[in-house]
Amino acid sequence: MDKRIYVDHSATTPVLPQVLEKMLPYFTENFGNASSIYSEGRDAKRAIEAAREKVAKAIGADASEIFFTGCGTEADNWAVRGTAYANRAKGNHIITSSVEHHAVLHTCQSLEKEGFEVTYLPVDEFGRVSPDDVKAAITDKTILITIMFANNEIGTIMPIEKIAKVAEDAGVPFHTDAVQAIGLVPIDVSKVNISMLSMSAHKFGGPKGIGALYVKKGTKLNNFMNGGAQERNKRAGTENTPAIVGMGEAIEIATADIEGKAKKLSALRDAYIEKVLSKIPYSHLNGHPTERLASNANISFEFIEGEGMLLSLDMKGIAASSGSACTSGSLDPSHVLLAIGLKHEEAHGSLRVTFGEENTMEDVDYIVDNLAVIVERLRSMSPLYEEFVKNAK
Amino acid sequence: MDKRIYVDHSATTPVLPQVLEKMLPYFTENFGNASSIYSEGRDAKRAIEAAREKVAKAIGADASEIFFTGCGTEADNWAVRGTAYANRAKGNHIITSSVEHHAVLHTCQSLEKEGFEVTYLPVDEFGRVSPDDVKAAITDKTILITIMFANNEIGTIMPIEKIAKVAEDAGVPFHTDAVQAIGLVPIDVSKVNISMLSMSAHKFGGPKGIGALYVKKGTKLNNFMNGGAQERNKRAGTENTPAIVGMGEAIEIATADIEGKAKKLSALRDAYIEKVLSKIPYSHLNGHPTERLASNANISFEFIEGEGMLLSLDMKGIAASSGSACTSGSLDPSHVLLAIGLKHEEAHGSLRVTFGEENTMEDVDYIVDNLAVIVERLRSMSPLYEEFVKNAK
Repeated sequence: MDKRIYVDHSATTPVLPQVLEKMLPYFTENFGNASSIYSEGRDAKRAIEAAREKVAKAIGADASEIFFTGCGTEADNWAVRGTAYANRAKGNHIITSSVEHHAVLHTCQSLEKEGFEVTYLPVDEFGRVSPDDVKAAITDKTILITIMFANNEIGTIMPIEKIAKVAEDAGVPFHTDAVQAIGLVPIDVSKVNISMLSMSAHKFGGPKGIGALYVKKGTKLNNFMNGGAQERNKRAGTENTPAIVGMGEAIEIATADIEGKAKKLSALRDAYIEKVLSKIPYSHLNGHPTERLASNANISFEFIEGEGMLLSLDMKGIAASSGSACTSGSLDPSHVLLAIGLKHEEAHGSLRVTFGEENTMEDVDYIVDNLAVIVERLRSMSPLYEEFVKNAK
Repeated sequence: MDKRIYVDHSATTPVLPQVLEKMLPYFTENFGNASSIYSEGRDAKRAIEAAREKVAKAIGADASEIFFTGCGTEADNWAVRGTAYANRAKGNHIITSSVEHHAVLHTCQSLEKEGFEVTYLPVDEFGRVSPDDVKAAITDKTILITIMFANNEIGTIMPIEKIAKVAEDAGVPFHTDAVQAIGLVPIDVSKVNISMLSMSAHKFGGPKGIGALYVKKGTKLNNFMNGGAQERNKRAGTENTPAIVGMGEAIEIATADIEGKAKKLSALRDAYIEKVLSKIPYSHLNGHPTERLASNANISFEFIEGEGMLLSLDMKGIAASSGSACTSGSLDPSHVLLAIGLKHEEAHGSLRVTFGEENTMEDVDYIVDNLAVIVERLRSMSPLYEEFVKNAK
């Protein structure tokens, strides 16, 4: 099988060739430690600051508000834990949602063991948190609201502006995990009251192993990583110059024409959804019908085990996923799909397809054609399906 | 100035061309998320596990005991904080030294604010911790001993085997920051009782933004980074495949012939030290005369400000440092040099030169010749030196 169709862009993306090209000199030639004062160090420092400007510009921030981290997960850990500790004297209550990425959820759970109290807000059938629910959950002990910008599994975009307004009115710091949103949804922190925002470069054509946390001026935040004086004493560890340069380049490209990109991707997405739902019976779209990432289609197929479907697709050259790659080590059904009301068996039979700019309408047809065959074959082997058909007759 | 002589290998090293070559396919072609179950993911997973084997083999560990991190600083943070929290019920006492890297020191200081008690052991004039001091400091509340393998500023190698024996006899976990030692000193955790050991790839010809923590089987350790199920549920965050592959390749090369490499580097180092001390008056070697990293020469020049010396050297094409790059944002004198008994002004006038395999005896001569001129010129502008000479007459 030579032809491969990659439709798992929410898991990771290839580094764009033009991004890699910009990174290359910083591995072998301009390799200096950016904290060193000689010319090799100053060259690296300049490259890092130029990248910081690009990251800042992409979200309407000031460069001084951008701090590079080792990944999106670190940005989330830092935002949640750092805010919790920095505001301990004020309160111990955190508000989040039940559909957050585990980088936020597991950090919150860990904080609960330390005496923090966490409200995990429910979501509607489309995976959206209600701003009214956020408002109602705020107490005088609330020190952080953390709600993701867009969901990594079902693609649902949260009502971030309204939640930000609720947080602003209550004077509570607001963090959003925007790892999936960057490059797909316009974000402007100069217009929306976001205190902290997490990013990860490998989700938008940059390298793995680099993320960033936007921290609005004046936000109280303890350090997560202790050590050297890097990142203005906020994040220790030798600056990862090539990766930072790559992140700057990638975010510039990814945000240059979000509208055009979203238009192209949503055409693929909508064609895919329409074809799957019409061709394959007992299939249902998960997530919001319109307020969703242009790249994302998450569909449940009844009477199917997700893993068999993924491996069958893989054999046909199609790389898709059942949900988050981060949880693939686990056999538990997706917490996101359970939160929007799916039963365990429905959650197990879900397929996430996330398109990228290299995908085509031919890819969509190829995926749907193969998927129809695979689903039918897997169902023909399913005792549940057999029983269902028998009862239906 | 075209010719550059880089002698700051303890700050960072260039990625070796053969290491970069192995990394390249994982940016753009084999870019799959290693936690995905389709073939792109399995390819990445295989590459990561092969690299894990190489890292393990380099230190005599089992692959299952190696966990990749975002940098050496993260490995240190994780080891210290994770051990502290995992053993809180047992005790709250940590033993470390006053010359550790800030990744350990600042983490310990941060833990003190949380109720932990930390003993910062003094060092002798050469920067060595006494194993007897470690033994004497142990109480029934001691839950961690963390002593670096070799010092990043003065290159002194600690009596690790003896300290490890003390820890073993007392049944206390022992962590060592081996960031500077890998590739320069043979390390075999199958023979020495080390519970945890931190590494950083960019110190030995690998890329920045990747480190590892060796965790001996059975060691109790809380997670530092919460989130996905990566690294067998121990370290969340999408696996940084290219960097991990690079780290595996680099450590294999760096540890293939430590003896030969050390012989070559120590010849450069010893020639440099001998020439500087004989040619430049009022200069003193810092650190141990023999128990030191083969790469490291740290020399204090009286009546000199380090920064002027570094910038003058830079103008002559020489990249050297005054100490740790990680602290260059700070104007404080080196805590390591103060700990071995230097006065503030002596600590300020110190130069760390750390050789790499591309350096030559011609480089040594070039550095010494230029250094002699620079030191003389800087001293001629120093009121302190003027006064000293006047008094001496």
